[in-house]
Amino acid sequence: MIEDPLGAFCAHNPAELEGSGAGPLAGLSLGVKDLFDLKGYRTGSGNPDWFRTHPPAEATAPAVQALLDAGADIVGKTQTDELAFSLNGENDHYGTPVNPACPDRIPGGSSSGSASAVAGGLVDIGLGTDTGGSVRAPASYCGIWGFRPTHGAISLDGVTPLAPSFDTVGWFARQAGPLARVGEVLLPAGTPQPPTRLYFGADAFEAAMAEAVGPLRAAAERVADSLGLALRMQTIADDGLDLWLHHFQALQWSEIWATHGAWIEAERPRFGPAIEARFKGAAAMPAERVEVAAAFRKGVIERTAGWLTPGCLLLVPSAPTRAPLKGLPVDQVTDYRNRALRILCIAGLNKLPQLSMPLIDIEGCPLGLSVIGPRGSDRALLDIGVRIAGTE
Amino acid sequence: MIEDPLGAFCAHNPAELEGSGAGPLAGLSLGVKDLFDLKGYRTGSGNPDWFRTHPPAEATAPAVQALLDAGADIVGKTQTDELAFSLNGENDHYGTPVNPACPDRIPGGSSSGSASAVAGGLVDIGLGTDTGGSVRAPASYCGIWGFRPTHGAISLDGVTPLAPSFDTVGWFARQAGPLARVGEVLLPAGTPQPPTRLYFGADAFEAAMAEAVGPLRAAAERVADSLGLALRMQTIADDGLDLWLHHFQALQWSEIWATHGAWIEAERPRFGPAIEARFKGAAAMPAERVEVAAAFRKGVIERTAGWLTPGCLLLVPSAPTRAPLKGLPVDQVTDYRNRALRILCIAGLNKLPQLSMPLIDIEGCPLGLSVIGPRGSDRALLDIGVRIAGTE
Repeated sequence: MIEDPLGAFCAHNPAELEGSGAGPLAGLSLGVKDLFDLKGYRTGSGNPDWFRTHPPAEATAPAVQALLDAGADIVGKTQTDELAFSLNGENDHYGTPVNPACPDRIPGGSSSGSASAVAGGLVDIGLGTDTGGSVRAPASYCGIWGFRPTHGAISLDGVTPLAPSFDTVGWFARQAGPLARVGEVLLPAGTPQPPTRLYFGADAFEAAMAEAVGPLRAAAERVADSLGLALRMQTIADDGLDLWLHHFQALQWSEIWATHGAWIEAERPRFGPAIEARFKGAAAMPAERVEVAAAFRKGVIERTAGWLTPGCLLLVPSAPTRAPLKGLPVDQVTDYRNRALRILCIAGLNKLPQLSMPLIDIEGCPLGLSVIGPRGSDRALLDIGVRIAGTE
Repeated sequence: MIEDPLGAFCAHNPAELEGSGAGPLAGLSLGVKDLFDLKGYRTGSGNPDWFRTHPPAEATAPAVQALLDAGADIVGKTQTDELAFSLNGENDHYGTPVNPACPDRIPGGSSSGSASAVAGGLVDIGLGTDTGGSVRAPASYCGIWGFRPTHGAISLDGVTPLAPSFDTVGWFARQAGPLARVGEVLLPAGTPQPPTRLYFGADAFEAAMAEAVGPLRAAAERVADSLGLALRMQTIADDGLDLWLHHFQALQWSEIWATHGAWIEAERPRFGPAIEARFKGAAAMPAERVEVAAAFRKGVIERTAGWLTPGCLLLVPSAPTRAPLKGLPVDQVTDYRNRALRILCIAGLNKLPQLSMPLIDIEGCPLGLSVIGPRGSDRALLDIGVRIAGTE
């Protein structure tokens, strides 16, 4: 079993699987979030009662199998927030993986262990999932590359669901090259369209904290220079990202309760208090609010598709600023979470792919700048990451 | 004498002069900041000791004469901050003209009386001066149109100077049409170039207060739509607007002392405490800082001219937010003033024309959005104001 000074792996649920030995990922080590089924192992999903009540998996999740077939070696299952329902990476049962870039700060979650292990050099590739930001936030906080694909582009079979219309398979790497190579294995084939227009998502940048505004803008300008494109101001949500978040939450929470409510009511699992409170909120989401939100989301998708057309890219912050300190008071956590979700809900509501690039430093801690593309532009985004990495 | 419920006019220094009766400004009433010479009247410059120690003017300032010749009628001299050395409009000797748009807030200065009189409908046109923002700030706070021309475009003969390499003649109106007509009278002839590129001055918008950021961006987008141009992100000061302000202040204050130091030392005038403190700062400005600043300004002008080329326009906020409340504590005033000057110093250092447009409402109080053009684009800016006014 791998040495784990960071607490990134599941000590209660160790796993190792050798890859095919040949292929585009040969020689790369892989950590897999403990939300993915590995044949013969239990999937723990970050909660001891889930672990206890679920038998070993009968098959390996196809996304994981594809990576094994491509030559990657699994060295362990990595920590996750409970049922992936958090952006922080602080698991009350199993501890908080260290953020190697900033050890007094949270690693971000829910794909906390994969991000920590990649950032700390324990593995080359970290596999995660991203429903509301669970790859993008920890990538940003840990100073690594992270990718959330177009919704539906990669199979979620054998992955513990959270909110199916938002769930995606995502991954991390320390460099843009390996990140893109994973995409070549997992994503549908296609010829990436070169970028012709670059938008600066003004309202998303306005959700950033004051100390991050200048560095985020400077990074956006460097990206524009790298790509040889002007930065065009674009308001993403004419009706306000607050309203987008409001409807995002209604949809996400109602799907979460539809997914896990029966198990929770049957098993009465113990959750950490913050997770417990949010599951209660999910259980109480009124149906009429969800109906309105579903119609709203349709409108959002149509409106965004009206300007984020093929060849267009949209820059947004990956998060409002560097990782929050560990153990902040709950009101600060909530305020910060809402700022983060105002930005993170954009790709989720619209089912768009998003690449988080570790381009920014805030007083010694990392922050990501993200590029969002239209649906299906996944390979183009990963290529752009490689181009930008080459000029930074 | 005109009725003056706003305290906008100089009760101690009334003046009336009929215009030619014919011309492009015929029928328009005019208030003239008490910094301009009117033949036969003393110029008070906002300070009782200045008023006492200066004889009646022997000639009318050419800028004023041009307006009289064009048919405008002067109905009074308007209040100014002491020697025009403030952005607030709170004159310790003569009172604070009312801001009719927001009576519990300052009108802005130093052209406070002209702005108040125009905003309150007492006159059609208000003549002022703008060294560091003395037209742009009160235009923004009082919700009217205000214009600062290219430095050197309009004669300052017969106008009490402040910092000659920054001083300009500026003016106010409630509508864009009359504002432009004054420009046709005062500005050199020329055919305005149509705008081809529109920049969003990102670092200037970042100097705005949080509550103004969204409304400012929305107004910028409306302007872009009106002009049929994309909004391009542009960092104005690669080296930071803080540094620009630092050098701006060295130059402005050294010029102010060179202009008024001898009179102040000879006459020992009584100033309000805030003005007094700034004159002391001006007296103490080290020569070596001024030398560095002069070289810096040359570099700034060259760099800006490199991208703000003919046909280009630059959007910036007119001020960080709506007018501050009257009588704020001094530390808040200083902090706010420094934010405002980070934005206002852009046109001043670069000798550029700037149009402030009353396009924004912050909780019932006005705020201006400004458009800056390259040197000599004055008539183009005024035309653009008319176009934008027609679509708002």
